[in-house]
Amino acid sequence: MKTLADAFEHTLNDMYYAENAIATALPNVIKEVGHSGFKQALTDHLAETKQQITLLDKVFSTIKVKPSGEKCDAIEGLLKETDGIIEDASGAIAKNAALAAACQAIEHYEISRYGSLREWAKVLENEEAHTLLSEILDMEKAANSKLNAIAIDSLNKS
Amino acid sequence: MKTLADAFEHTLNDMYYAENAIATALPNVIKEVGHSGFKQALTDHLAETKQQITLLDKVFSTIKVKPSGEKCDAIEGLLKETDGIIEDASGAIAKNAALAAACQAIEHYEISRYGSLREWAKVLENEEAHTLLSEILDMEKAANSKLNAIAIDSLNKS
Repeated sequence: MKTLADAFEHTLNDMYYAENAIATALPNVIKEVGHSGFKQALTDHLAETKQQITLLDKVFSTIKVKPSGEKCDAIEGLLKETDGIIEDASGAIAKNAALAAACQAIEHYEISRYGSLREWAKVLENEEAHTLLSEILDMEKAANSKLNAIAIDSLNKS
Repeated sequence: MKTLADAFEHTLNDMYYAENAIATALPNVIKEVGHSGFKQALTDHLAETKQQITLLDKVFSTIKVKPSGEKCDAIEGLLKETDGIIEDASGAIAKNAALAAACQAIEHYEISRYGSLREWAKVLENEEAHTLLSEILDMEKAANSKLNAIAIDSLNKS
């Protein structure tokens, strides 16, 4: 990894791994959630995650490479945290509030990564990638805002 | 973990572990960084991190418990990502840009966690913890903004 283009490709691979890992993990989180609004928000986000994988495939096409399948350590740690909550939480209040917060931490991670990738796409004059990554970034921000509203309005007070 | 107070204590322990892990890891990242503004921002943040550990000790005092030392999986994954960049990056441009982005991902993780903790402190009517956590949250937001400005102004274009 020498150039900004290399850093872009490396981080794009991280996010491809991350989105696939999230798509695999989300159904179990959805099953554990006991709040209908939160369950719906995660179900919607699972569909969005699959759409994001397709958008990332298009970003890979712009740089004419295929995803390498390289592991993303950060998402592994973030998802392990979610598994830990499911194991440790015996009460619905703690489980719903802690899972919503852990899902927001994942959204924040993604917001940060797509923010960097989008900025790098601009510097690398890859207009198509910039547009695609901006679309994904907006989805992640909206998902985080929705989770935040659910947490503040109901989960934390239930 | 049954109640919101349990989720609060659990997540507070996560962040105590996280801040200590960051304080341990940062000196090596600072050593690897080849951009003076970025190096200074991380050096300042190392001092802030130590201050945040003291503030977290005060939050623990408000709930009359001591930190448990429980491992935070998420920060382990996020820091492993930073180590991976140091190993893989052979060029200064890629290393500086990728490290700044990885540090921003850590800041975003912290912003998310302190945002949830602060909100929970309010619901739990722990005014002192709410004030202390707001102080830490503001520091993290400022650190992220500083890194973002450095990345946009220089690292990504160097």
